[in-house]
Amino acid sequence: MADTDARPHVVILGGGFGGLAAARQLDDPSLRVTLVDRRNHHLFQPLLYQVATAGLSAPSIAAPLRQILRKQSNATVLLDEVLDIDLAKRQVQLAHGTLDYDFLIVATGATHAYFGHDDWAQHAPGLKTLDDAFTIRRRVLLAFERAEREDDPERRQEWLNFVVVGGGATGVELAGTLAEIARHTLPREFRRSDPRRANVLLVEAGPRLLPAFATDLSEKAQRQLEKLGVQVRTGTAVTAIDDNGVILGDQPLSARTVLWAAGVAASPLGRKLHVPLDRAGRVQVSPDLNLPDHPEVFVVGDLASVSQPDGKPVPGVAPAAKQMGRYAALCILARLRGEKTVQPFRYRDDGSLATIGRMAAVAQFGRLKFSGLFAWWVWLVAHVYFLIGFRNRLVVLLDWAWSYWTYQRHARIVIGSDQADESDSRLPKDV
Amino acid sequence: MADTDARPHVVILGGGFGGLAAARQLDDPSLRVTLVDRRNHHLFQPLLYQVATAGLSAPSIAAPLRQILRKQSNATVLLDEVLDIDLAKRQVQLAHGTLDYDFLIVATGATHAYFGHDDWAQHAPGLKTLDDAFTIRRRVLLAFERAEREDDPERRQEWLNFVVVGGGATGVELAGTLAEIARHTLPREFRRSDPRRANVLLVEAGPRLLPAFATDLSEKAQRQLEKLGVQVRTGTAVTAIDDNGVILGDQPLSARTVLWAAGVAASPLGRKLHVPLDRAGRVQVSPDLNLPDHPEVFVVGDLASVSQPDGKPVPGVAPAAKQMGRYAALCILARLRGEKTVQPFRYRDDGSLATIGRMAAVAQFGRLKFSGLFAWWVWLVAHVYFLIGFRNRLVVLLDWAWSYWTYQRHARIVIGSDQADESDSRLPKDV
Repeated sequence: MADTDARPHVVILGGGFGGLAAARQLDDPSLRVTLVDRRNHHLFQPLLYQVATAGLSAPSIAAPLRQILRKQSNATVLLDEVLDIDLAKRQVQLAHGTLDYDFLIVATGATHAYFGHDDWAQHAPGLKTLDDAFTIRRRVLLAFERAEREDDPERRQEWLNFVVVGGGATGVELAGTLAEIARHTLPREFRRSDPRRANVLLVEAGPRLLPAFATDLSEKAQRQLEKLGVQVRTGTAVTAIDDNGVILGDQPLSARTVLWAAGVAASPLGRKLHVPLDRAGRVQVSPDLNLPDHPEVFVVGDLASVSQPDGKPVPGVAPAAKQMGRYAALCILARLRGEKTVQPFRYRDDGSLATIGRMAAVAQFGRLKFSGLFAWWVWLVAHVYFLIGFRNRLVVLLDWAWSYWTYQRHARIVIGSDQADESDSRLPKDV
Repeated sequence: MADTDARPHVVILGGGFGGLAAARQLDDPSLRVTLVDRRNHHLFQPLLYQVATAGLSAPSIAAPLRQILRKQSNATVLLDEVLDIDLAKRQVQLAHGTLDYDFLIVATGATHAYFGHDDWAQHAPGLKTLDDAFTIRRRVLLAFERAEREDDPERRQEWLNFVVVGGGATGVELAGTLAEIARHTLPREFRRSDPRRANVLLVEAGPRLLPAFATDLSEKAQRQLEKLGVQVRTGTAVTAIDDNGVILGDQPLSARTVLWAAGVAASPLGRKLHVPLDRAGRVQVSPDLNLPDHPEVFVVGDLASVSQPDGKPVPGVAPAAKQMGRYAALCILARLRGEKTVQPFRYRDDGSLATIGRMAAVAQFGRLKFSGLFAWWVWLVAHVYFLIGFRNRLVVLLDWAWSYWTYQRHARIVIGSDQADESDSRLPKDV
């Protein structure tokens, strides 16, 4: 790729919350920006569980990176995959070429991890990408279809048993929505099986749900989930997952659908930097988000492990990634202006929100804590506000209003069949 | 599957326009209906090209069959695949069980065909299912991405050459929309390549576009397409398609993206009936849509070959399929009431519409013919009217209004990678 532009070149790897925030902050004609992602879109991950549970269609929570940055003339978007990073040469090796950089921002995020049990992946899909969401949507919808076709009551119930592993925000949201689908969306549509007989079990190894929230909110979340019909088991470790279901401690549970919302590991790109990683594979960066000995390289978002001046770690959430991306961009702009010292990164906690289901949520803003209907409204307004694009906001609101009144979920469309499914005797082929 | 219900049992194979119309017409508590489809949704195929060209999201033009029929208590939906039909035993063999029938309606439609060149399929995807639409969307969007990454001007142009094979309604719609995307949607978003340099070539072997319309409308459609920037070549046969592009007669044309809108063949299920098929694989049925010697078996929609009293064949379009489905249902109800004679099926031609692109269309209602803006409005109203579901109508109208004002297409999200793409060296992996 021809490089004739003399302006400083900032290369950003990853178009998630961190990378995109950095690119937008670098809207300055004195430098040029190249954003590399292997997908063509930015994904609003906080609502991904709604694509998985058929409440929203994929384009409602995704926007093409090119479209987002089309008016920023110093920014180029490249659809490519990063193979390697050469810190000495200041060069990124892509699958289709190389990029020289003056500054590098690595923002490739995290993926789900199975704590060394990679064979669990085929039985218990996780939720990070749109393809993951379609896989979960397909498995959940097909489970109810298989139950309808099954004459044997015991085997039918196995298709109606759902296990969600992991009691963080994603696990709570998935479990609550599954219970709502089984109890309210589907019942009138099946003739031989009764979707209301579905069991949704939420398993958490730690002592309580939503560990990022205060203890009393965890309890409230659990009560709200149980009211929706979810069984909650905290302090329970999953020791095996296979075709037949899960083993909880030493107690087997037959279930044909297991969803994984438990483990997160940093992007494998961290290893290409040849610097110390923490246990979750995250890169330990300096207080100004730099690599040691490489002040021109920043790591932001879920891939970065950074401690605050008060000793607390920065959580792996979208607002933190955005703040880090903006901080890295401001550092670069300051250094290009010749400023030597920059204040270390400080995470500003704007509060935490988790939705549980129909009109139930928990919220925590500093010392202010609340739950139930009001928390749900705050959750709704915040999530629509942060969605990219006026059209998406409008359509998501419309979809939610429609789902609220009708109990229907408009995206109940089974698309494709992934390879894991095809080699999986539990699922029909060609459906 | 337990069969204890004594009511007459109508089994319908296929949940397209024909099968669904039949099922709805059979809303009568004195009989029971089982609708079998290997997909969980009814698809509004006339707008499928808009999913392929990123204007609509999949759930906007698809609705779960269960949801459509949920209030019809005599109807059961089964998600399964038909393996065989035993006319003597009156039994359908499914992948997961068997169904006994008193009446059978076969409505499994058509798929695209490559006139004996099955190896063309991997190079030139056709458009019949949602998965097909995603494949086309992916290839088209990735072609512009590859052009952006390509330094060599000749190879870059190959990525910007698009060939659409087949000048029927689907080919005309695809070509017109591709030209609009290249000229209006994408230009400001690329920094190194210019999407306006895209060539869209529409190739038709016959003497004119839209052969189902009057000659002067074909000419008008061609002029409207050319105004949008599409090159039209009629009377030109494609003799080869491979990785490098197409051969037109004996003239090679380099193009990295070829779309197939030329051939249609009836569903392979027709062969299971062991009756004479026509050249396109369609089942030759009696004037009352029955199989010879099997008055309890009906074939409707694109799978049926039926001649009118005036000798004209019934066209393979959605209104014809719906009319046939309703006719078969009314025949069954009449026979159950003991009526012996039924009027033979007559196709009522309600007119033809084809859209060409932004505010251009052609329309023909009997002797009434018109084109341009007014035809486009008629097309729009008709297509929104026939969409299933109030929500879908609203969202599709909203999407169209938004696209109209902004020239944007909201569903420009690349999803998945099909097997053909993965084994295809022309496309990046993991994007």
